[in-house]
Formats: sequence, structure tokens, C-alpha cells
Amino acid sequence: MSEILVVGSLAYDSIQTPAGKVSRALGGSANYFSLAASLFSKVRVVGVVGEDYEQKDFDLLRSREVDISGMTTQKGKTFHWEGEYKGDMNEAITLKTELNVFETFNPVLPTHYKDSSFVFLANISPDLQVKVLEQVQAPKFVGMDTMNFWISSKLADLKKVLSKVDVVLINEGEAMMLTGAANGIEASRKVVEMGPSAVVIKRGEYGFVMYTKAEGFFILPAYPIEKVTDPTGAGDTFAGGFFGYLASLNRKPNVADLKEACVKGTILASFTIQDFGVKALSKTTTKDLEIRLNEYKKVFAHY
Amino acid sequence: MSEILVVGSLAYDSIQTPAGKVSRALGGSANYFSLAASLFSKVRVVGVVGEDYEQKDFDLLRSREVDISGMTTQKGKTFHWEGEYKGDMNEAITLKTELNVFETFNPVLPTHYKDSSFVFLANISPDLQVKVLEQVQAPKFVGMDTMNFWISSKLADLKKVLSKVDVVLINEGEAMMLTGAANGIEASRKVVEMGPSAVVIKRGEYGFVMYTKAEGFFILPAYPIEKVTDPTGAGDTFAGGFFGYLASLNRKPNVADLKEACVKGTILASFTIQDFGVKALSKTTTKDLEIRLNEYKKVFAHY
Repeated sequence: MSEILVVGSLAYDSIQTPAGKVSRALGGSANYFSLAASLFSKVRVVGVVGEDYEQKDFDLLRSREVDISGMTTQKGKTFHWEGEYKGDMNEAITLKTELNVFETFNPVLPTHYKDSSFVFLANISPDLQVKVLEQVQAPKFVGMDTMNFWISSKLADLKKVLSKVDVVLINEGEAMMLTGAANGIEASRKVVEMGPSAVVIKRGEYGFVMYTKAEGFFILPAYPIEKVTDPTGAGDTFAGGFFGYLASLNRKPNVADLKEACVKGTILASFTIQDFGVKALSKTTTKDLEIRLNEYKKVFAHY
Repeated sequence: MSEILVVGSLAYDSIQTPAGKVSRALGGSANYFSLAASLFSKVRVVGVVGEDYEQKDFDLLRSREVDISGMTTQKGKTFHWEGEYKGDMNEAITLKTELNVFETFNPVLPTHYKDSSFVFLANISPDLQVKVLEQVQAPKFVGMDTMNFWISSKLADLKKVLSKVDVVLINEGEAMMLTGAANGIEASRKVVEMGPSAVVIKRGEYGFVMYTKAEGFFILPAYPIEKVTDPTGAGDTFAGGFFGYLASLNRKPNVADLKEACVKGTILASFTIQDFGVKALSKTTTKDLEIRLNEYKKVFAHY
């Protein structure tokens, strides 16, 4: 098993959806990613929290054998996001973003992190993504996410990161924005032209599109969930399942590996959305995953 | 092979999309349906056109061995729809609807249509759908489509039709509107509670969800098309491929048949959207279908 380095946000989220609301629930891309990936592999987190970060939230990652020695506590408050989902819950409306300690985040890797072979650069500023990647000695497989904010404000930096990674995991709308494509199919090919050998376009309730230079499209629907409670973190959960599975194979991933990784990611994401924040995901076991994986395969089996 | 009776609109459409525009191009649910279904089975059309309906448009259906003796020509003009698609082309903006001869349409079946065993009630007024169905002596398998206009204006009539059909093919947004569900997954189960033993929810570029009482979900993505020219008629093409395939089997469809029918429908729809109106569909051959079917299966094959 290879070890995965992840850099991303550690946050408290206040979320309202048609199913209810929560205030200051544990969130952030690095938390969702780590909880998902740790079902398969050892994870090392780089991130920053404020003095209000609760002991139980450190303990949650520790209980999953996540290495949190790269998490630093700074004077001030933890990153806080407030958002709302309406109607079909396909898109969050951001009500408030309080960066707090995240504003001056300067990722420095503990020495023992530097030999990480799998690296995931979650959705943070592209210059910080580069900064992290430069500290890793010989990464074997690197992935990244990004968002509309960086596409519009730091496109040059973003393109630099894109040229250095193996795979991009990105929302469909953001992939269209990044490439100027009219749909996710066109966007996926255009992302790959920017450097990475594979892209996974996350389509929310519609599943995903993977496009690889080597074999073209791999497209599947999401696992059908009738009652969605909170979609927050679904994409980061997908990335965590995807990377966690790949790292567990302990080899340079081939296309078949990437396909299975997508399936693991989409199934794990289907757990996340069934409760607020990390609540459902933190209880999900490999046994739960296996059961749902079998159900999932029936959903599109037809011969 | 069983014969399929279809009732629906025969129209001229003026359509604008980011790819260009056409004026008074042949359209209407019954035309798309018939062109698709006639690749597999014999089709009988019931509908009405105006005096402006062109000979070549009658000839197009005749060239596919479609029985058009149930198409009547009335004094006045053919139904005309004007619409526009913007951006991601997921939804048409209706600019003009001129019902013309369609306004007083009173479907009367030619005597030799009455023994039809497969019946498709395309998107027309629910009371007309009932009227057609009542004239068929012993239908073996009946399907229907509907739209937001009938859901909001004729819900009681619509529920009556729903209780009489085997399968509903419907857009995701309209299925949500009909059932009050928050997503297509929840909607599909609720449609089946209204009577039919199966529902196929059409998700446009994201493919479809079928839900059957007997076996639950069958979900697949659409065939990936990078350049969409005009999505008009994709849903009716899907229905035509679906019904055409089922009728060709000449038996009461089982769930495996319905699954394969969905695949045929989604592939045929992928041709329709590659050109304006019926242009691409009317040139599509069973050989084209077969080739794309093989490519399609590779898109989601992973073991």
C-alpha cells in the first residue's frame, strides 16, 4: 500500500437544505477526502485549523489512522463556509465564506511526508497546490481539483498545475468554464489537452464521465439515492475513494484501475449525501461499500 | 413482428440553437417516433396536417413503409412550433406555438388500425390519448408521454391515462412536476405508483432511468456526443426506438426486453441530436445503429 498525501481545507460548515440544517458541522475537502481514502490506504493530511478546532475532530481522523502531523493550528478561527441548497440540490448557494486562518495558509510538509507517492491537491489556490507538489520528492501519481473562483482569478497558475498532474477531478460546470466547452463530453477531451492523461468529470446525481488519453470515455450513472439530505462533500468523497483505492494497489495506475477507482468513488459519495456533513461517511465501512457496490452493478447490468 | 400504432403531432418547427437555425423543418412527435420505430417494425400513424404539408414529408414516412392512412389533411395550416436552445441546450425556450389544425384534432382510427397490439400515445392532450386507446380492440402493450402543460391543466385526465398504460416515457423535470418528487430517482418510483408497471425517465445528455415494479432501477448514461446541433425530437426518437424494438420481438415485453429497448432508444436519440430536425435520423440505418451500439457498450464496460 502506498501513502497518499492530501492538501485541502479543514472547515466548519453551516448548511441548509430542504432536508434540514446544521451549524458549524465538520467539513472541508481534506476531511471528506481523508475519511473516504482511509477506508483503503494510509493518508497524510496537510492543512490548517484555528484554535476553535475541536479535539473530537482531530480524533476522528486519528481513529482512521490518518497521519495528521501536517495539520497545523494557528491563532484565529477555522475556515467557515455557510451555504444553502434549494430544489433539486444540484448547486450550492454560498451565503458566507470566512477564510480565517486559511487566508494565510502556507503549506509546509513534515519531512516524513516528502516521500509520498500518491498526491491529491484538493480545491485550494493553484499557487499553494504547486507549492505542495514541489515539496514531494518523487510523486508517482498526482491528482487535483479546482473551482470557478480559481478559474476566473488565477488561470495562469492553474494551467501550470494542470500541466503537472496525472488526473483532474472536477465538477462538470467548472470543466465547461475552464475549457469553454458547451457540455461535459467536449470539456473532458479539452481538459486532457491541457496536460493530464485523465480527467474525471463529476456530474452529481448523474454520475461521472472519465476520459483518458489511452482509452477514451468511461461513463456511468450515480448510485440511485431517493432522499438526498446534503450533497456537500460528495465530490471530495469521490476523490478520496478514487485515490484511496488506487494507492491500495501499490502500482502506477492503469486505465482499468482508474475505472474501478471511479466506481469506488461514486459509491462512497452516495453515502456522504445521505446525511449532513461527514456524518454518514464517517460511519461507512468497507462492508457497506461492498454491499452497495453489488447493488450498483445491478443498476446498469442488462445482459 | 407486431404493428405499432402511434398518435402524436405532425409539425413544422422553426428552431434556433448555438449551432445555427432552421425554419419550418419537419418535426412533431409522431414523425420522430415513426422514423425511429420503422427501423425495427411496421408503424401506423394517426395525426392531422394542414394543406401546407408537403408531399415529400408524406413520402418520407411512406419510404419507411409507415402506414399513413390515419393521417388526415384538414383545411388550414400544419401545427407550427418555434423554439430556441441556449447554452448547454438542456431545455427549449418556446417562442411560439401555433396549433392550427391541431387545435380541433379528433383522432379517428382507420378500421384496419384497430387490431394494433403496440400503442404509443405521444405527447398530446390526455383526453385525446384516451380517445385513441379506446378505439384499439385488444392492445398488448401501451406507452405514453406527456408534458408540463397537461400536468398543470389536465391532471385528472392525465391520471386516467396513467392508470391504463404499461409504460410512461417522460422527461425528468416533468416526472418531478407530476409527482412532486425532488429528483428523478424518487419521481420514477412515484410514477409507477400511479399505475404503469414501468417508467423511463429521459435525462437528455445524462441518459435515462428506467424503474420497473418487477426489478427496480436500470440506469445508463447517454452515448457521448461532443457537438450537439439540435436536441429537438430526442425524446420522441428514444420512444420510437424503444417501441420499435419491443414490437419487433412480437411478445409481451419482459424486463430484459425493456432494458434492451432503452439502449436502442438512447442510441437512436444520439443520432437525432447531431443535426437539425429529422435530418440525421432519417438517414440513420440499422447498420449505423449497430456500430454505435458496440461503441456505447465500451463506454460503460469496466470488467
